[in-house]
Amino acid sequence: MTATSRPARPVMLGQNQYGKAENRVVKITRDGDTHHIKDLNVSVALSGDMDDVHYSGSNAHVLPTDTTKNTVFAFAKEYGIESAEQFGIHLARHFVESQPAIRRARIRIEEYAWDRIQTSDSGNRFIGADEVRHSFVRNGQETRTAQVTYDGEDFQVFSGLKDLTVMNSTNSEFWGYVKDRYTTLKEAYDRILATQVAGVWRHNWTGDDQRMPNWERSYAQVKRHMLDAFVETYSLSLQQTLYQMGARVINSRGEVDEIRFSLPNKHHFLVDLEPFGLKNDHEVYYAADRPYGLIEATILRDGAEPQIPVDMTNL
Amino acid sequence: MTATSRPARPVMLGQNQYGKAENRVVKITRDGDTHHIKDLNVSVALSGDMDDVHYSGSNAHVLPTDTTKNTVFAFAKEYGIESAEQFGIHLARHFVESQPAIRRARIRIEEYAWDRIQTSDSGNRFIGADEVRHSFVRNGQETRTAQVTYDGEDFQVFSGLKDLTVMNSTNSEFWGYVKDRYTTLKEAYDRILATQVAGVWRHNWTGDDQRMPNWERSYAQVKRHMLDAFVETYSLSLQQTLYQMGARVINSRGEVDEIRFSLPNKHHFLVDLEPFGLKNDHEVYYAADRPYGLIEATILRDGAEPQIPVDMTNL
Amino acid sequence: MTATSRPARPVMLGQNQYGKAENRVVKITRDGDTHHIKDLNVSVALSGDMDDVHYSGSNAHVLPTDTTKNTVFAFAKEYGIESAEQFGIHLARHFVESQPAIRRARIRIEEYAWDRIQTSDSGNRFIGADEVRHSFVRNGQETRTAQVTYDGEDFQVFSGLKDLTVMNSTNSEFWGYVKDRYTTLKEAYDRILATQVAGVWRHNWTGDDQRMPNWERSYAQVKRHMLDAFVETYSLSLQQTLYQMGARVINSRGEVDEIRFSLPNKHHFLVDLEPFGLKNDHEVYYAADRPYGLIEATILRDGAEPQIPVDMTNL
Amino acid sequence: MTATSRPARPVMLGQNQYGKAENRVVKITRDGDTHHIKDLNVSVALSGDMDDVHYSGSNAHVLPTDTTKNTVFAFAKEYGIESAEQFGIHLARHFVESQPAIRRARIRIEEYAWDRIQTSDSGNRFIGADEVRHSFVRNGQETRTAQVTYDGEDFQVFSGLKDLTVMNSTNSEFWGYVKDRYTTLKEAYDRILATQVAGVWRHNWTGDDQRMPNWERSYAQVKRHMLDAFVETYSLSLQQTLYQMGARVINSRGEVDEIRFSLPNKHHFLVDLEPFGLKNDHEVYYAADRPYGLIEATILRDGAEPQIPVDMTNL
Repeated sequence: MTATSRPARPVMLGQNQYGKAENRVVKITRDGDTHHIKDLNVSVALSGDMDDVHYSGSNAHVLPTDTTKNTVFAFAKEYGIESAEQFGIHLARHFVESQPAIRRARIRIEEYAWDRIQTSDSGNRFIGADEVRHSFVRNGQETRTAQVTYDGEDFQVFSGLKDLTVMNSTNSEFWGYVKDRYTTLKEAYDRILATQVAGVWRHNWTGDDQRMPNWERSYAQVKRHMLDAFVETYSLSLQQTLYQMGARVINSRGEVDEIRFSLPNKHHFLVDLEPFGLKNDHEVYYAADRPYGLIEATILRDGAEPQIPVDMTNL
Repeated sequence: MTATSRPARPVMLGQNQYGKAENRVVKITRDGDTHHIKDLNVSVALSGDMDDVHYSGSNAHVLPTDTTKNTVFAFAKEYGIESAEQFGIHLARHFVESQPAIRRARIRIEEYAWDRIQTSDSGNRFIGADEVRHSFVRNGQETRTAQVTYDGEDFQVFSGLKDLTVMNSTNSEFWGYVKDRYTTLKEAYDRILATQVAGVWRHNWTGDDQRMPNWERSYAQVKRHMLDAFVETYSLSLQQTLYQMGARVINSRGEVDEIRFSLPNKHHFLVDLEPFGLKNDHEVYYAADRPYGLIEATILRDGAEPQIPVDMTNL
Repeated sequence: MTATSRPARPVMLGQNQYGKAENRVVKITRDGDTHHIKDLNVSVALSGDMDDVHYSGSNAHVLPTDTTKNTVFAFAKEYGIESAEQFGIHLARHFVESQPAIRRARIRIEEYAWDRIQTSDSGNRFIGADEVRHSFVRNGQETRTAQVTYDGEDFQVFSGLKDLTVMNSTNSEFWGYVKDRYTTLKEAYDRILATQVAGVWRHNWTGDDQRMPNWERSYAQVKRHMLDAFVETYSLSLQQTLYQMGARVINSRGEVDEIRFSLPNKHHFLVDLEPFGLKNDHEVYYAADRPYGLIEATILRDGAEPQIPVDMTNL
Repeated sequence: MTATSRPARPVMLGQNQYGKAENRVVKITRDGDTHHIKDLNVSVALSGDMDDVHYSGSNAHVLPTDTTKNTVFAFAKEYGIESAEQFGIHLARHFVESQPAIRRARIRIEEYAWDRIQTSDSGNRFIGADEVRHSFVRNGQETRTAQVTYDGEDFQVFSGLKDLTVMNSTNSEFWGYVKDRYTTLKEAYDRILATQVAGVWRHNWTGDDQRMPNWERSYAQVKRHMLDAFVETYSLSLQQTLYQMGARVINSRGEVDEIRFSLPNKHHFLVDLEPFGLKNDHEVYYAADRPYGLIEATILRDGAEPQIPVDMTNL
């Protein structure tokens, strides 16, 4: 047995990947005195001809994870960061095309959004309110996500978001469900519906023979349609709301073929105030942490093949 | 020795307090079809004649922490939640005045802000953009905090915020510092200044003989002045920026006598791209997690007595 | 269109599931004066004929997530908790067999281990050291995990662990890797190897026609072999160590056919002390948070089909 | 007004401090083939003549936080890490004595414990079970803490721990408490008592004229007495248990004058199984997250002055 041969044991190496996770890269672009920020957390995962490094520890095919880190930062300079997706496409292509042993690259990105600080008129003696060019406050509504995978032939581009917490304080009911020996839940005809949206959607763009979407605009529009559907759906179940959110996106955005949501039901329980001689007229709620209902589903364009992993939006 | 007497050992009970922490209360107020939300996390800490329960386990003076929880929810109904401070004042007064054994009550509150969801014109077939009456999205910029303490005579009201992340992408320098054997840091003439603001400020209102501040307006104004000073200060040190933020608040808001900040220096290191033949012209930064510089200080109105604990804004 | 028909839009519902997540159930078993604890966090996910609830909001097929929560607690009483796996099997079978609309149940469990508190001889006047019958301290080394899936025909049982942090302070090298334009890493001939093991393994037991493994003993043995391999492998790469850990388990435990690891390389960088006139002879390290190398792979018994999802051990 | 003078505004700088937080230093000591680990997270806070840097941004008195970081790592090499306390004493003394502008140094340390991996006899072909010299597994029971403050004259040394989770599954009652309008809690005559101990204790050692305690032995003994008292106290209230834990330490350890605990009551609620026709005979509990009772107190040697801040063990 040579150092690189497979050991003669009845044990097989299966799917494997490696890379540098959570590279926190911030890019400032200067447009005269006006600055623009891109703030990303980039994770690289590579796979290919990697049997040797597992069997014998030979690193002859291994591009160090440290190098993948350097590449992320260098590419931010060399090619800029137009969008998380475009940046991921660039990186994925680079690793597969420059390293013979690497057959597949997966780039995962979280993007943190920043807003320009709005200063007051009164207090702002030196800088006009519309002139804030290099001062930013982090927008904490949601974290934007992207995953780009490339195997030398096709790209697979997922966009997404997480931690977008939304609430309807009425227009939600829950009744007519199955009752068994263990059912104690009372039917509800006016409840709070609150959830923390985690969603991932797949673009049908797969390579340079197609026109590439405008990733920034696409993200804004998908989020918009998702929120519109959340607001406008009179909900008989969180599943129904989820479906409406996904269907609105598929129907409105031709570049998206598939979307998967993981929606925790952030329970707001009406507090029983009767022992204190008070009537709780849908006013005072207890926001509970655990346990929570968890509703997950994929919505697809008719005929599209599901590709978003079941475990991607939530473990 | 009776059950309630102090044991004959040379061991003394010192400062002690008890209560229910992290009561997550959500109050919906209905103004016709338009709903308003208050979303609080309320922690109660009580102290007073509590020697017996420590020495012998006698609960004769102990109002259960479960009862303090019930009180939070019942008060949300009975008196409403106008602001975190007003709600804390109400609770603190109640415990001290209704329980002979309780001499001091401290209420700590975190408030989570919600914005109305902005729907699009196009997609919004049922509800106009200005008619979103009961759909909200959590505003994640900062968490608002409040602490109210009452001893039967005087109130002490702290307001505050945490997790407000801000950045100036220029207008910050750092040079002229002490150099000793262990100093390797290079002087910087144009650096990113980023921090995650945690601040607590003390109001000079102490009781009903004074006019009570408008807590909501006061909070908005303090935050505004703090951000204005952050934007407008050309920074030679984070300490200087901190001082300017505090001074602006003290000078502008007569109701505030003291403010304390804890400002982590969220380092953004310029990545060395020279090994790759690239020049990093203040463009690509590595956002580091640990370690971080931590700058803390109290700013006071001249003559005011410092009351905000050193350990309150950061451990 | 009736309430239950599929809408006439070109939008399709894909994979979906729902249930109650994170039910924190603690079971005390009293064996005379000696108590035993099982402390679990149980998540239920159900799927089946659920089109209606997504399309129209009809809950006629929906067993409420609240009921699944009640079932977890009731089953802890009715059937006890022998092991996480056995408890999951019981629950999964129940939901599929008792609810016609439910075709597939997936139970995920985290288990928190407790040790009996070891008391001292000297201080322990009332209770002998070996008589501690109902006092426990949480063992924080790792969290044990289990996932059981049942579709009415076959069971799929995954066991696992996470947050098991291990370190070899020598016997690890890294050299001989690919160098490209972006490579700056120096080769290392004696480095610290530290990782936080997340692992999931699949048992080949699929139903009552086979003899069920002793889940508790199996877990202890798998962990043992995993640690033995970590200790004994002279490492030329973290991939090699990973493979040895998996191969040792497959070779030693006949009940396991597949194991997948996600091993973050918890970097310990030698601090450069030369600027201070000190030589760092592999003594002082900086433990870095981010970024980190992330190594993931599946190891299989020859001929076994891979079933553990790529995204299960780490996102 | 010169750059360093105090501005002519009625605003005063109060308590302030600065330094580098969370320096993650790992020290390996090689005793032949046997390695020993110290794994610390060290935070430095300095204060003194720092008006200028706040008022004008002049850094002439400022030792950079980057230098304090370097000092932590260099000292690990130059002087070793015998214990967290000894290391903190060394650092605190250095900053105050070497920098004229620094009047007070506070060093906070978290220490993470590691155990040697116990390998099996059977699987261990190369290394005997008692020969594991450089393989460790992180012991997750608790995090050890230390804080050392030095003002050029006296040292103040706090030791402590956090996240030590303990449970008595019986021998705990709660009754005889105050009942008011908002009390709904039922009296309990056999309940689970579980808490996550955070404790800080002050040593009466203040400087080199006294004999320095053996910090490692002292820590082990304090933890031992604390746990003994937890196990042996038949509890009528968590306050009583807390007092017994503190009193046992004060009575048994002459080097400790003061100890403060923050004990969250980790509620384990008996689940109501009656709706399902089951009797819950103190067997099945729901482990709740929030809200929780929070009990805090200081225990002192008679005559000792309290110095541990109220806000130190818990915010």
